Amino acid sequence: MKKIGLALLGLGTIGSGVIKVLNENGEMIKNREDLDIQVKKILVRDVHKKRNVTVDKNLLTDDPEEIFKDDSIDVIAEFMGGEMPALPYIRQALSRGKTVVTANKEVIAKHWDELELEARKSGAGLYFEASVAGGIPLIKTVRRSLQANHITKLMGIINGTTNFILTKMSEEGRNFSDVLAEAQRLGYAEPDPTADVEGYDARYKLSILSTICFRNRVTVDDIYCEGITNISPDDIEYAKELGFGIKLLAIAKKQNGKIEARVHPTFIPVSHPLYAVRDSYNGIHISGDMVGNLMFYGRGAGDLPTASALVSDIITACQNGGAHHRVKLDDEQITFEDNWEDEYYLRLVVRDKPGVLAEIAGIFGRHNVSLNSVIQKLKTKDNATIIFITHEAREAWVNAALEEMRTCPSVLSVESRIRLER
Amino acid sequence: MKKIGLALLGLGTIGSGVIKVLNENGEMIKNREDLDIQVKKILVRDVHKKRNVTVDKNLLTDDPEEIFKDDSIDVIAEFMGGEMPALPYIRQALSRGKTVVTANKEVIAKHWDELELEARKSGAGLYFEASVAGGIPLIKTVRRSLQANHITKLMGIINGTTNFILTKMSEEGRNFSDVLAEAQRLGYAEPDPTADVEGYDARYKLSILSTICFRNRVTVDDIYCEGITNISPDDIEYAKELGFGIKLLAIAKKQNGKIEARVHPTFIPVSHPLYAVRDSYNGIHISGDMVGNLMFYGRGAGDLPTASALVSDIITACQNGGAHHRVKLDDEQITFEDNWEDEYYLRLVVRDKPGVLAEIAGIFGRHNVSLNSVIQKLKTKDNATIIFITHEAREAWVNAALEEMRTCPSVLSVESRIRLER
Repeated sequence: MKKIGLALLGLGTIGSGVIKVLNENGEMIKNREDLDIQVKKILVRDVHKKRNVTVDKNLLTDDPEEIFKDDSIDVIAEFMGGEMPALPYIRQALSRGKTVVTANKEVIAKHWDELELEARKSGAGLYFEASVAGGIPLIKTVRRSLQANHITKLMGIINGTTNFILTKMSEEGRNFSDVLAEAQRLGYAEPDPTADVEGYDARYKLSILSTICFRNRVTVDDIYCEGITNISPDDIEYAKELGFGIKLLAIAKKQNGKIEARVHPTFIPVSHPLYAVRDSYNGIHISGDMVGNLMFYGRGAGDLPTASALVSDIITACQNGGAHHRVKLDDEQITFEDNWEDEYYLRLVVRDKPGVLAEIAGIFGRHNVSLNSVIQKLKTKDNATIIFITHEAREAWVNAALEEMRTCPSVLSVESRIRLER
Repeated sequence: MKKIGLALLGLGTIGSGVIKVLNENGEMIKNREDLDIQVKKILVRDVHKKRNVTVDKNLLTDDPEEIFKDDSIDVIAEFMGGEMPALPYIRQALSRGKTVVTANKEVIAKHWDELELEARKSGAGLYFEASVAGGIPLIKTVRRSLQANHITKLMGIINGTTNFILTKMSEEGRNFSDVLAEAQRLGYAEPDPTADVEGYDARYKLSILSTICFRNRVTVDDIYCEGITNISPDDIEYAKELGFGIKLLAIAKKQNGKIEARVHPTFIPVSHPLYAVRDSYNGIHISGDMVGNLMFYGRGAGDLPTASALVSDIITACQNGGAHHRVKLDDEQITFEDNWEDEYYLRLVVRDKPGVLAEIAGIFGRHNVSLNSVIQKLKTKDNATIIFITHEAREAWVNAALEEMRTCPSVLSVESRIRLER
């Protein structure tokens, strides 16, 4: 039986999850995979701190160098999060030929090229299944089960916090700040929720996933990003009436040498399988030219789901003899498209007088935006709310039309512009 | 670049799909996977028949021996369906050391042990991702991404034909035979629909999938099987009223050394992710002790989705040097449970007179079946329809209670008994 020396960087929630998986299922892994994973060292800030997980005190160290120089350690698992000090640790480990298994989306999304190169130079492995959508098998699945396909499109709910918030807003008719406060109380949202609610977390994950799917490097800067802080209960109610839900989607499409990648709130029809992804669950919809539409659903975060992905990567790394399974990118020259085509939901408040609708329709027409449906809502004495669903139109055209409307005296306000995917 | 000689057994729908994948995406596979898959021979019944797919006539042969004895052929892909002549062909191929990649659920479900042994003896590979749920990556995913988990439960919609029929019945209020006829016209159902509508197709797939998930051999005979031919529009309507849908589910659970495996129509709540699996799509819900709940969704049949899985297996087989990635079963002694616990939906027509409900409740009580809810429906002059949802009860208890009711003068008929999962 093959013996593998493992070091953990950290012993917080996820580290404890890894220990739990190895304690409870280590024997099964030995029998089925013919592999004995032995934890050799665990890097912690305070070796004397009391811990909730049963672990041999002698394994704890506060000196990373002890880990890097230990020849009995083959694989280092990292799940500290953030760039510092995780990035230099990963760099160190790879340069010393140790395989790294990580859940760190920020480090992988931002430093992919450098770390891939480092791994290639030293022959170490670099695995990061756990960095995208926690326990849902995605990266290995795309790389090892969908090789016969050009992936053309992916749409995912890959941030559990915002999905929890939008689900509560939709099902309980509550507003954003109210539900955010509840999510913070429950531990689903951080004290500083910016990374989640502004879409930055989803953007890191989309960078990694779309790079794997398209075999072209999609950096964080290539991805348009808009959060959910402006989503109002009104929009959610109107969406329902029209047969849609609002989800924070990470979307990437590749066609004819062009890639578009974006994270933003999105209308999707209730019949779309992503609509059924509720609460803090994640769901990723992938389209391949041969396989058609696939969806993967599960827990995108949490100690044990993330540990499940980390331990799976550890096993794979060991069975591959630690060899680096590098993602070979295509040579294809691609360009990034930011003037994408979409349908749009638009909500305007206008003066309620004859000729206004004709005026607005005229503005849309001049900007090449054709309308699928127009619904007049809520009328007060002097003004009315009007909802438009456009046909497919270019982002820039819609923005230009809205810009012109903002200067139009009959339009009191442009309340919402939310993209729509089917 | 590694060159691989491939033979196809058959050139029908799926064979043409494989050719299409290799023609259109072969160059991509070369670049990304460093693998040149060359079709060397194709077994057909009639080498002169006109074909819809562009293929070199010189590759066609009607003599299987030509394929088995050809040293340039490393991998044989089989997708003829049924046991004859596929089984002896697979046997032949394996015994001559050729790796077999197959979509044949019946052969794998029935002859797993023999074929695994044959493959092990000769060192050939045996791959069958395409045999379960077509293009949805499942077998490799369970084996290569969920190794850290004991899989405890799986519930799947793994027959597209019956899911199409039940979706149409539910959404259009039509009856079974009417929708079946439409499915036959559209080519979604065979002229003889028995294997689909009686659940036999799903049973083969469940045998394979549960064996992989539980690492214990679950044979076809270990699986209880009930089809959808008795599902009435009334039951579908009542299900909707109660917040459920009816799906043909393949269910397998493992706990404390016991496995239960069954295929039958099932009530599931509309909030369950499997409820959103509509039309001919498949969806498989898998629970692991660490990862929690996962669902995989996609096309369970069709030429290109199936070809996607076959070609992926071919690539995997070649990258593993043709080595046999045998599924190591556990040594654990297990027993099969056929007296499982479930909730039940029961529909009875009873005489409408005082004391009848008490009498029926008494029968349930004597058989340890406790009731969650009782709803009286449709009343005519003399009789009434009553719907019961039970709490969790053993199958045998519920059957015994229904048996006693059938002899009870106040009960005119037991119309339906449908199991319920959440």
